[in-house]
Amino acid sequence: MKPISLFDIGKKATSPEEAVSLRQKLVSRGAESDYSHLFHTTLDLETVSAKNCENLIGSIEIPVGVAGPLLIKQLSHEVFIPLATTEGALVASVSRGCKALSLSGRASCLVEYKGMTRSPVFACQDGRSANELVAWIKTHESVLKKTAEATSSHLKYLSYQSWIRGRHVYLRLVFDTDEAMGMNMATIASDAVSREIVAASDGVKLIALSSNVCTDKKDSVINSLFGRGYWVQAECFIPDEVLTSVLKTTADFMLETHTAKNLVGSNLAGSLSQNGQVANILAAIYLATGQDPAHVVDGSKAFLNLEKTDGGLYVSLTLPSLELGTVGGGTYLPAQTEARKLIGNGNMPTATELASVVGAACLAGELSLLASLTTNTLAKAHKALGRAKQ
Amino acid sequence: MKPISLFDIGKKATSPEEAVSLRQKLVSRGAESDYSHLFHTTLDLETVSAKNCENLIGSIEIPVGVAGPLLIKQLSHEVFIPLATTEGALVASVSRGCKALSLSGRASCLVEYKGMTRSPVFACQDGRSANELVAWIKTHESVLKKTAEATSSHLKYLSYQSWIRGRHVYLRLVFDTDEAMGMNMATIASDAVSREIVAASDGVKLIALSSNVCTDKKDSVINSLFGRGYWVQAECFIPDEVLTSVLKTTADFMLETHTAKNLVGSNLAGSLSQNGQVANILAAIYLATGQDPAHVVDGSKAFLNLEKTDGGLYVSLTLPSLELGTVGGGTYLPAQTEARKLIGNGNMPTATELASVVGAACLAGELSLLASLTTNTLAKAHKALGRAKQ
Amino acid sequence: MKPISLFDIGKKATSPEEAVSLRQKLVSRGAESDYSHLFHTTLDLETVSAKNCENLIGSIEIPVGVAGPLLIKQLSHEVFIPLATTEGALVASVSRGCKALSLSGRASCLVEYKGMTRSPVFACQDGRSANELVAWIKTHESVLKKTAEATSSHLKYLSYQSWIRGRHVYLRLVFDTDEAMGMNMATIASDAVSREIVAASDGVKLIALSSNVCTDKKDSVINSLFGRGYWVQAECFIPDEVLTSVLKTTADFMLETHTAKNLVGSNLAGSLSQNGQVANILAAIYLATGQDPAHVVDGSKAFLNLEKTDGGLYVSLTLPSLELGTVGGGTYLPAQTEARKLIGNGNMPTATELASVVGAACLAGELSLLASLTTNTLAKAHKALGRAKQ
Amino acid sequence: MKPISLFDIGKKATSPEEAVSLRQKLVSRGAESDYSHLFHTTLDLETVSAKNCENLIGSIEIPVGVAGPLLIKQLSHEVFIPLATTEGALVASVSRGCKALSLSGRASCLVEYKGMTRSPVFACQDGRSANELVAWIKTHESVLKKTAEATSSHLKYLSYQSWIRGRHVYLRLVFDTDEAMGMNMATIASDAVSREIVAASDGVKLIALSSNVCTDKKDSVINSLFGRGYWVQAECFIPDEVLTSVLKTTADFMLETHTAKNLVGSNLAGSLSQNGQVANILAAIYLATGQDPAHVVDGSKAFLNLEKTDGGLYVSLTLPSLELGTVGGGTYLPAQTEARKLIGNGNMPTATELASVVGAACLAGELSLLASLTTNTLAKAHKALGRAKQ
Repeated sequence: MKPISLFDIGKKATSPEEAVSLRQKLVSRGAESDYSHLFHTTLDLETVSAKNCENLIGSIEIPVGVAGPLLIKQLSHEVFIPLATTEGALVASVSRGCKALSLSGRASCLVEYKGMTRSPVFACQDGRSANELVAWIKTHESVLKKTAEATSSHLKYLSYQSWIRGRHVYLRLVFDTDEAMGMNMATIASDAVSREIVAASDGVKLIALSSNVCTDKKDSVINSLFGRGYWVQAECFIPDEVLTSVLKTTADFMLETHTAKNLVGSNLAGSLSQNGQVANILAAIYLATGQDPAHVVDGSKAFLNLEKTDGGLYVSLTLPSLELGTVGGGTYLPAQTEARKLIGNGNMPTATELASVVGAACLAGELSLLASLTTNTLAKAHKALGRAKQ
Repeated sequence: MKPISLFDIGKKATSPEEAVSLRQKLVSRGAESDYSHLFHTTLDLETVSAKNCENLIGSIEIPVGVAGPLLIKQLSHEVFIPLATTEGALVASVSRGCKALSLSGRASCLVEYKGMTRSPVFACQDGRSANELVAWIKTHESVLKKTAEATSSHLKYLSYQSWIRGRHVYLRLVFDTDEAMGMNMATIASDAVSREIVAASDGVKLIALSSNVCTDKKDSVINSLFGRGYWVQAECFIPDEVLTSVLKTTADFMLETHTAKNLVGSNLAGSLSQNGQVANILAAIYLATGQDPAHVVDGSKAFLNLEKTDGGLYVSLTLPSLELGTVGGGTYLPAQTEARKLIGNGNMPTATELASVVGAACLAGELSLLASLTTNTLAKAHKALGRAKQ
Repeated sequence: MKPISLFDIGKKATSPEEAVSLRQKLVSRGAESDYSHLFHTTLDLETVSAKNCENLIGSIEIPVGVAGPLLIKQLSHEVFIPLATTEGALVASVSRGCKALSLSGRASCLVEYKGMTRSPVFACQDGRSANELVAWIKTHESVLKKTAEATSSHLKYLSYQSWIRGRHVYLRLVFDTDEAMGMNMATIASDAVSREIVAASDGVKLIALSSNVCTDKKDSVINSLFGRGYWVQAECFIPDEVLTSVLKTTADFMLETHTAKNLVGSNLAGSLSQNGQVANILAAIYLATGQDPAHVVDGSKAFLNLEKTDGGLYVSLTLPSLELGTVGGGTYLPAQTEARKLIGNGNMPTATELASVVGAACLAGELSLLASLTTNTLAKAHKALGRAKQ
Repeated sequence: MKPISLFDIGKKATSPEEAVSLRQKLVSRGAESDYSHLFHTTLDLETVSAKNCENLIGSIEIPVGVAGPLLIKQLSHEVFIPLATTEGALVASVSRGCKALSLSGRASCLVEYKGMTRSPVFACQDGRSANELVAWIKTHESVLKKTAEATSSHLKYLSYQSWIRGRHVYLRLVFDTDEAMGMNMATIASDAVSREIVAASDGVKLIALSSNVCTDKKDSVINSLFGRGYWVQAECFIPDEVLTSVLKTTADFMLETHTAKNLVGSNLAGSLSQNGQVANILAAIYLATGQDPAHVVDGSKAFLNLEKTDGGLYVSLTLPSLELGTVGGGTYLPAQTEARKLIGNGNMPTATELASVVGAACLAGELSLLASLTTNTLAKAHKALGRAKQ
């Protein structure tokens, strides 16, 4: 059987609309009316076809709820957090956490941009020549920097790390990609750098432009140690009265459950994540604001800390690799753009501000989930509000 | 400052429409017209508000492209794969992989349902009483099974594992949740089982209904070893002529890059995943078909294998924990339902069939990415087709 | 240059003594007197040459100190713990911990024998035939059990686990090897089982008798989850007065340091161990009692738990994979045999008793180290007592 | 029951001999003659008591066999490798690997000294002040360097890394400790640095001088990424004729088994080590040459690479954290000193040279084990030569 060519349709059609329509006919075997929701879209077909999605046939819609308001020390306005999710109880859970944080004198956020990375791997003739390549890169860093920066006016070269395994050299290039998440920019710059390295070196071969040492969209320790995208930490001191009134729990219960679940339970499971449901909140904000949802994999490797203090709890959530941006990819889509504007209370937030809000929202979700576990009301909430989280 | 209560709005409004409208007014500070795309939705407000998303204000739209057709030995029809994504080049990449698989005599899939899990953790008085609790559970398994199954007609108890750490007992309960992904059902059943254990045991306390040993939406080794949801393996023998004509590469190049990237590079990064971009494809199909995108975290811990054979390559991708379903959560949404129907060529696929397609589509994505790395055309593709993928 | 054959010497010599002497001459280039300590040994040359060490040339001596006495609930006598070490402060540290445990109403130990494992890996024609092999093994378990048990009167077959990756089947066979650590027995039994599987199956090939899934002498999560050798947990309630008088610290300080170091610090380092210096104590007892010191790698993946209680601390150390024995390998050597006898207070302890003592001694070491960290006296101790420990 | 004080004996005795004798009487309950081997020692009681081992009662003896000769490009002489082991077949296995390497034109070694580390953890008032502490350390690095170097004439400060988790700062200090393994020196220097930090900072508290981020004697990714002690890589091209004649195997078999075992099997087991038996060889050389055997835990996290080449195999073993020295700890003991001299062919090797030999010997062990797995002769070897390895 000869496979039908969806690509050919794109080439033959005289307009994006026609291409979409022809594809719909083809994949539905002529039963377009059976797919009226999937085949309906309000998106701009030309732009989306060109930039975001080949073989376009339509779109799906994901409901957006709003959690908050959330008060963050580094932002002057009350923040409403748009969450695109179909998981009942999630928005309610984050909202409760926001209330706890806001009533505790606001969440506070530290943000440090670590840069976007890409990691080519090169093959040399032996370990000694791999060592020489590492030395060559060290002495030619300024040249490579120039090469990288020539590929885009938005990209700045920041630094690199390198490792040898056998006769292979793994290079982890780190770039400032401005307001973009920047994976594309980093790939193009790494390609230029890699080609220059190969051209300058005798017998050096590029094995792969991406060697998983980046690490993109896979769990890794390297991202936790070096960071990727934005390193964010949200924290707060929660007084006992807020624990009691809003979270219906106590500092001791929170600490006991946190230790048994996030510090010991994760370890038993062979997991290096130390949190309860960061992936849930991350996925919901990433979708709402036009980020790449596959980046939830790296971003959710997050670390909750709780300490008992006089009169309450110190809580913090460290997220070493939030890969996000305000330009590029799906960020320009209209609803997603408006969702970011909503976060900015009418003004477009910077990527750094967005990263703060993401961190604080994830902390809110952690507090609320942990509290509901201490009171064993998780199952009850899910019976009432739909599907289970965490 | 008194935080504004979004929840109160829901209670005061006389209809879901009014509630949505009031919330829109509130969060936009009266500037609703600035958020016309975000605040627009075709979804059923009543159902979505009740089941999927509290504090509903609107929705976002994600474009859907289609990859394929893909031929799978276990399915009689050509499969078109709907991918909800904004990442340029992704659909094209999966399509190329589908072509390679289809021309190689179809992909073949193994699927085994492992069940949905939830892991309560209990505190005992000391290690000895923890040991006794473990023994009690063993002898009362049939009672607990009855308790679990009384919570839902769709749920069957399957098995359990248990571990002691100090005086805590971690229990991992495994359920068959039928066609649902089942996290909610499993939570409710685990709640009943946990309450029964606590009632029957002297001095045993439930610390948390979920202890991260499940493991839900976090990277873990436990899911790789025991599986969660569906264990899927897709495989194919790719002849040299398909490697050359479709993937523009050779068996030797594929193997060299796979080893340097997935087997060694991942290890260097401190990652136990052995794949290139499974998270991308998983996120796109999960979104298109109404799954929970946060499950991409566990699901993407997948393992690619390549072996040179006479005349080509044996390739396989093992995905031990695909948490998905055809009922529950966001699966009922109209476009998402139609996307599954598209996969079933007009018939609704079972969760098992869906799992097969997901596995094979991920394998397609792996082959195409790996091939483009061997030919160093990744950067080029992204320049042409938009944003970078892993 | 033709390499000199040390093996030929063994064959030519008419006695073990002569062989040793000829080898000493050869490797010292005739300068035997320069190596008078290394070339001196009181060991039985014939037995050692035949069973423990090819190309024998002499021996090294390691000092043995004694920690204790340690009181353990499951043992009726005071235990003295022989530690073979050159690390100043280690014996003193363990002794202090023993004192704390003994004064706190004795340590209590749980021991469960999990069995010795070996993991062959088989190649099949494809995933489907791999699946069939797994099914075949399931239905032929009793036959394979017989085959395994025919290889030794000391070995009992216990169970197996299996996994598929691509077209490879990984089998983890679990045996009761009686009082022996049993790696050798398990290897021979696995060899017989593997040969039977290959003989019975069409197109199945044994790739390796050991596939690292055992896991032997490498860090792994699989051993933590399933156990290997002896699973041991030692625990104790330490009253505040003992914390103050013996350990010079408080429950709060201990908990704070434990959390920052073992639960969070280990995680930051990308380590799944949650302890301070188990490897030190394990190495010292393993060497003193004739165990294989390379098993410290798996054995030291141990998990300390601390909980504040009314009036003190609950402490426990879980060690899921202590591979040890009282027969086989180097256990028969005279000083090492006597070291075990010392542990048994004049009687030879069983492997289970030995495992208890090892667990409790490691807990003693943990308490003492943690206490010294809380008081910041670690550097001071090392200045006074020699070299640094963890 | 009042525990008997072994420490008091030490204080009362008028000589080390008397102290040893009194302890022997005490721990043997007067039956000294039952422990004649354990209580016998040729070691210098005074020095050992003072520097290496408190509560000294005697010693154990471990047989030493010799593997080799091994030819290494960076050393001008044939190397004999002393291995202290009781594991039958180990010396034979390493010897076979040495023969293969030597006949293949010598092993080649890369060595890079990474330095010894210690990682204090500090508590601050909140995340912001943690951030300020990190900034303070950065601007005061030269002062801290001076403080560190004032503690020992043998120690040079090299660099540091730092991380924030919540309001804790984890500092990883890296020192050059000259020819010593240097854990003690690094601890004392870190103590001085930590005290200075605390003195200069308002509200900063030292939680622990060692936070497991070092990482000492625990598995970790941090040591693989940054190295600790010596980073060593040994490599060789093995021609097909050596594979056939010495290792009785082929390049294809070696590669197939390596991939299934070290790259895939380890991953399945949840292990980030990629080798077969490095721990065996490391333990045996470390014991023979006076190193700390607990360092086998970190050191054995080693990575084997195999690549097919025209006419044979490229093989390499990367060991990122070999913690060893030629002075300090147990290195001065007479037999252990002579063992190092044996390695140096009559001259004392430097720590760098020793590290090379350790790396090459481990590679020899890997090749031999892998070859025996491909031919399925492992069980046979163990039947013939004693106990199982790997």
